[in-house]
Amino acid sequence: MNKRGVLTVISGFSGAGKGTLVKELVRKYDYKLSVSATTRQPREGECDGKDYFFLTTEKFESMIENGQFFEWAKYVGNYYGTPREFVEQQLNEGNDVILEIEIQGALKMKEQFPDILLLFITPPNAEELKNRLVRRNTEDMETITKRLKRAEEEAEFMDRYDYIDINDDLDECVQNTHTLIQNYKAKTSNCADFIREMQAQLKKLNQ
Amino acid sequence: MNKRGVLTVISGFSGAGKGTLVKELVRKYDYKLSVSATTRQPREGECDGKDYFFLTTEKFESMIENGQFFEWAKYVGNYYGTPREFVEQQLNEGNDVILEIEIQGALKMKEQFPDILLLFITPPNAEELKNRLVRRNTEDMETITKRLKRAEEEAEFMDRYDYIDINDDLDECVQNTHTLIQNYKAKTSNCADFIREMQAQLKKLNQ
Repeated sequence: MNKRGVLTVISGFSGAGKGTLVKELVRKYDYKLSVSATTRQPREGECDGKDYFFLTTEKFESMIENGQFFEWAKYVGNYYGTPREFVEQQLNEGNDVILEIEIQGALKMKEQFPDILLLFITPPNAEELKNRLVRRNTEDMETITKRLKRAEEEAEFMDRYDYIDINDDLDECVQNTHTLIQNYKAKTSNCADFIREMQAQLKKLNQ
Repeated sequence: MNKRGVLTVISGFSGAGKGTLVKELVRKYDYKLSVSATTRQPREGECDGKDYFFLTTEKFESMIENGQFFEWAKYVGNYYGTPREFVEQQLNEGNDVILEIEIQGALKMKEQFPDILLLFITPPNAEELKNRLVRRNTEDMETITKRLKRAEEEAEFMDRYDYIDINDDLDECVQNTHTLIQNYKAKTSNCADFIREMQAQLKKLNQ
């Protein structure tokens, strides 16, 4: 296996439980969480460098120009993006990094970096997705309807992911996701160093 | 996930421990083992339908003509091949099937059926491969030298496999191989039924 870590991009439906899943993966195992950057104002309780890197528009735009984001987008007048430096550094140190990101950004990243592991998190069925959005009790019916409409659109992209990761029971999903990521290291494309080493050793042995 | 089982093709170096690995997978979990067909004579203790299907040359050649083998080859005047019928039947019943096969046959199968899971079993290094061949104590030094030479040639094809499955500790390798196979069911290409169902449910919910 290579010594470089695996970059896992987690996305999926709003209400699929991505946030909790990621939190548990970081808590139970040694995953590093990528922190996004934004130009919006911090909300109460949000910490710079933990919840987001809060940047000025000038700083953000100069980072775009210098290719310092994996992907970025503008929503409602604010920039959001994934800075490369932290992720690259962690991967080079052999750490596995998790990045939670919305679907369009995730697919853009996979196009650029085919080696990343792209997981689509989903409840076991649509009824359960609706129930979770309702149980959250933080949104009115209009917002829930919008989210379900968006899920319908997003479902069209599910087949472009590497794996479908069903979040029915949280503990089970955390465990499954962990083995999916660890198994990914045995993928041949991630074993180039091992293969070259084995080829060289056999050649030497047969001399 | 689809209801159809996964077909796993196991190959790798002679001396990597493939036979023991496959035996343990069948014993500990519910894998079905594909049985090869051959035109060679049964050796003492070998059972037809268990060790091999022992066929006449006429029968074997008519099965070739009718496309009833996944792959076949001729060695030292005898035919060897993998009959499709048993494997297809098991997969359709939702059973996971394991097939142990030499490297050329394995690669031929992957070309025809990209959905199969192709595992390359290898010791952690070349020295250990040599030690295992020596410890077997069933072969003279000339045969061992030949096997190591063959391993060197075979190592050139390692990168055409899906996963590199390192057999250092047997129990660990059995466990890893089991999770590799089970995780393969979550691969998007194996989740076409689930994805279509989810898309249909969301459409219905939003009507």
